[in-house]
Amino acid sequence: MASPHDRLRALGIELPAAPPPAANYVPTRSVPIGEGRSLVYVAGQIPRKADGGMYTGRVPSQVSIEEAKSAARACGVAILAQLEAAGGLERVEQIAQVIGFVNCEAGFGQQPEVVNGCSDLLVEVLGDAGRHTRAAVGANALPRDVTVEIAAVAILRT
Amino acid sequence: MASPHDRLRALGIELPAAPPPAANYVPTRSVPIGEGRSLVYVAGQIPRKADGGMYTGRVPSQVSIEEAKSAARACGVAILAQLEAAGGLERVEQIAQVIGFVNCEAGFGQQPEVVNGCSDLLVEVLGDAGRHTRAAVGANALPRDVTVEIAAVAILRT
Amino acid sequence: MASPHDRLRALGIELPAAPPPAANYVPTRSVPIGEGRSLVYVAGQIPRKADGGMYTGRVPSQVSIEEAKSAARACGVAILAQLEAAGGLERVEQIAQVIGFVNCEAGFGQQPEVVNGCSDLLVEVLGDAGRHTRAAVGANALPRDVTVEIAAVAILRT
Repeated sequence: MASPHDRLRALGIELPAAPPPAANYVPTRSVPIGEGRSLVYVAGQIPRKADGGMYTGRVPSQVSIEEAKSAARACGVAILAQLEAAGGLERVEQIAQVIGFVNCEAGFGQQPEVVNGCSDLLVEVLGDAGRHTRAAVGANALPRDVTVEIAAVAILRT
Repeated sequence: MASPHDRLRALGIELPAAPPPAANYVPTRSVPIGEGRSLVYVAGQIPRKADGGMYTGRVPSQVSIEEAKSAARACGVAILAQLEAAGGLERVEQIAQVIGFVNCEAGFGQQPEVVNGCSDLLVEVLGDAGRHTRAAVGANALPRDVTVEIAAVAILRT
Repeated sequence: MASPHDRLRALGIELPAAPPPAANYVPTRSVPIGEGRSLVYVAGQIPRKADGGMYTGRVPSQVSIEEAKSAARACGVAILAQLEAAGGLERVEQIAQVIGFVNCEAGFGQQPEVVNGCSDLLVEVLGDAGRHTRAAVGANALPRDVTVEIAAVAILRT
């Protein structure tokens, strides 16, 4: 069976170094819950482009749904990078929860399509372990005007 | 003592089948935490009407606070349906956390009254086990323009 | 080493009584996770002033970033008061997660600076135990028009 790192290679994705937090907080926190497992909280990740810039702007007036979906996928890459740093992708037992915030206009209703950019990636890379519960909601504003911000909670074997 | 199912009957509520997720995610994820208990994450639930349609629109310009409260109650019914499918309502030890997002105009400040539609139901059906911590916030947009979306975390005996 | 209460004194902060919830929910819920530790969910805290009023209004049109940061710090004081009531600050092993919602105009992007008001306080009072993962997002509306609402999850030794 392909490992998460095999799958990343097959997808042509190179995990970046785990992005440092933008302010006075930490990117992950691990909570042992017994039987060699930990609950790992991942801070809200913002969407970085390969060139170091960010995906910014509101959907759909400034950014298309497809671009926003790419932004959500970039948030997913950052979540994977954080989990790699927190213990390793091969130790992910499940992604328990994903909360996705989409920078959008009032009345926009396609947050699910946008956040699928992250959800699809997590399943492509982690298989069944990547399937998660999710809340996807709109926000009238996000840090640095990024298009998407996504936080997660995962279970890792330690 | 009345069971959760007795209370549902007394309230005239028939639990629907657990709603399937609207996108690439799962409705619940269970995390064993020892001593026969699990942390159960419930995906953001949206408010379905008995006729299969949804409660949509923004508070208070398009939807009244009372209607929005009914929408929040419908989200609560969906949360209960998910917990029933995840192990059974009689196994709910506590609802640990509820996060409610209310689709509203800028400046609207009665999210607590709206989300009480869900909170009241959880306590009516589950008694003390249904009492939860809560965050209730506004959102300028929600999936499919629904009026309320509510996610939860519960503890179940397994 | 200074205790959390020593640090509060040094900062001139007197913890208020744990604020009661504004609606049908509870301020904290504790979930035992083994080895004498509990996961403690803290309901979304709103920013009270010393005079009992609240910090209200939107950033940056009605409230400056500095004022909003003070509001976030007040939310942090309320989180500490809740943790004191839930078991005691000296038992906090870590703050696992903070979710901060900032009442703001569309396009505002300095939620991190605002929510730092809470994050800085948690670290000042709890030291390393206060370092947390964080999501900071914008909201077009919050309960009672408060400027900031912050929920948290902590680990306490029991």
